[in-house]
Amino acid sequence: MDKILLGHGSGGKLMHDLILCHFMPSFGIEELGDAAVFGINPKRIAFTTDSYVVSPLFFPGGNIGELAVYGTVNDLAMAGATPLYLTAGFILEEGFPMNDLKSIVMSMSEAACRSGIRIVAGDTKVVNRGKGDGVFINTSGIGTVHEGVMISPLRIQGGDKILVSGEIGNHGVAIISERNGITFTPPVLSDTRPLNRLVHSMLEATKEIHFMRDPTRGGLATTLKEAALGSMKCMRIKEDALPIPDQVRGACDLLGLDPLYIANEGVLVAIVDTAWAESLITVMRGHPYGKDACIIGEVEDSPEGKVLLETSIGGTRLLEMLQGEQLPRIC
Amino acid sequence: MDKILLGHGSGGKLMHDLILCHFMPSFGIEELGDAAVFGINPKRIAFTTDSYVVSPLFFPGGNIGELAVYGTVNDLAMAGATPLYLTAGFILEEGFPMNDLKSIVMSMSEAACRSGIRIVAGDTKVVNRGKGDGVFINTSGIGTVHEGVMISPLRIQGGDKILVSGEIGNHGVAIISERNGITFTPPVLSDTRPLNRLVHSMLEATKEIHFMRDPTRGGLATTLKEAALGSMKCMRIKEDALPIPDQVRGACDLLGLDPLYIANEGVLVAIVDTAWAESLITVMRGHPYGKDACIIGEVEDSPEGKVLLETSIGGTRLLEMLQGEQLPRIC
Repeated sequence: MDKILLGHGSGGKLMHDLILCHFMPSFGIEELGDAAVFGINPKRIAFTTDSYVVSPLFFPGGNIGELAVYGTVNDLAMAGATPLYLTAGFILEEGFPMNDLKSIVMSMSEAACRSGIRIVAGDTKVVNRGKGDGVFINTSGIGTVHEGVMISPLRIQGGDKILVSGEIGNHGVAIISERNGITFTPPVLSDTRPLNRLVHSMLEATKEIHFMRDPTRGGLATTLKEAALGSMKCMRIKEDALPIPDQVRGACDLLGLDPLYIANEGVLVAIVDTAWAESLITVMRGHPYGKDACIIGEVEDSPEGKVLLETSIGGTRLLEMLQGEQLPRIC
Repeated sequence: MDKILLGHGSGGKLMHDLILCHFMPSFGIEELGDAAVFGINPKRIAFTTDSYVVSPLFFPGGNIGELAVYGTVNDLAMAGATPLYLTAGFILEEGFPMNDLKSIVMSMSEAACRSGIRIVAGDTKVVNRGKGDGVFINTSGIGTVHEGVMISPLRIQGGDKILVSGEIGNHGVAIISERNGITFTPPVLSDTRPLNRLVHSMLEATKEIHFMRDPTRGGLATTLKEAALGSMKCMRIKEDALPIPDQVRGACDLLGLDPLYIANEGVLVAIVDTAWAESLITVMRGHPYGKDACIIGEVEDSPEGKVLLETSIGGTRLLEMLQGEQLPRIC
């Protein structure tokens, strides 16, 4: 592969290969995760970065600005951290309407406020017309990791339960519908929202959350495959248990997409000690962003590194990482 | 102004207006600086972000990768911090040559190593061909602030000396020469390099460094104007004292540019207590990146908020911030 393809940004196999073969060895990064965690004595600090290139910039249920704040807030939350500080870097295209920029900045400010994070530093670059696409936003965030919390695929064990916090597929379908001029009644809205308070409630209940990730690019299937490879366990999930809204299912049928590979921006997957699964579901359902929380499957010791989907009709399907790119620029 | 202009990314007046009128009030940021500083008990942490959109990606003396590492390392150093951890976010254009990406990543890795900073997290996005320009890189960095150090324009006082660590204008001229196909013999090389160890030596010598900044976009004049406005003092500098290499002077004459507004990537300006000025110069000259350090002027109580240049021929010129954009995409 001698050129960058759109698939290198997909969150799937191509991107993983790029990261594993080039970035991680060059930078000496050893573990893949939503945020890096390290000590600044006496605290453990989580530190993460994400660039946002979503197209269109404004979509049903959100815009690039709030997405950029919530996405990074959620990455910190997934590391078991309380998000504290955020930076915002803008790459603007010459000619971009100032009013659109104002709307985006205002959304970011509101999103930061809602998440309880402070935007403390920023940067602005402008590129010539035709060398960018309106606006790209990078946000980087830091937070302090809850005491006693250790979130890592290495903690996943046979018997653990697999939980999701809510409906899957809404963000991706909202973007596609906007891009293709398809309208749903009622409209499918992006689920972009901050998960840090939901996670806080969960970690107040128990520290026996072994793994946590928000299934953004690459969707639920890719996230579970990462968990399977990181733990060398088998993730077995039940199709009937998946909270996929009818409209998402319909849109996916129509467009030939698989909801298991569609990006989400306000849902988390948690893999937890079985003894705590039910009470965590109760805690999650008590939170507005966890009201549809459910158990979708469990961890088995073998086959190692696999994700198995028990289908509604009684078959078993092997889920791999997203191959290529089904929906470029989803976030 | 209803559209973004290239000048909004210049580091000069337009960019300041954008930041002061929109970003700072929306985000509740109160002070402009190279990095935000806040406490994560018991440490003071500096946190900064920068996106790099330099064109061309490879230029005499460097490339976008090392620039992205050193730029952020230097921003942390300017806040009096020891740079510790860095994130790297890539926005790649579909079709970008993989070998160029490898060279850039390798340079970043070497630059991180040379600076003593660890790259701990990253992100990769790909945009369609024609919606980006090869590669844009965001780096965000954190570091711990040296104990007892307080760098702020509010500490600047009348009588302070103004120091620069080395020659000015090399980065900007290297980029322009590459862009315009002008060659110099010997070539003018970008000064992109890490200043954190130089700053460390300076802070070991004394904490009486009141203000420090690396004059990147907008150049030395814009940085001094920021210092003048932030302190409401007058910065008076002497043209004869400015370390401007002959080739930079020649290139600027040829192209109608002013070296005082040209970007630098490996030079710092420090405003220090007069009692420490000479010994700091000695300390700086003992470091390879400070060997041309010199005193270029001093702070006076009035006229408030002004920068005055005493010219070689005995006149006085008032220096303002960079207006518009003389060199887009310099970093």
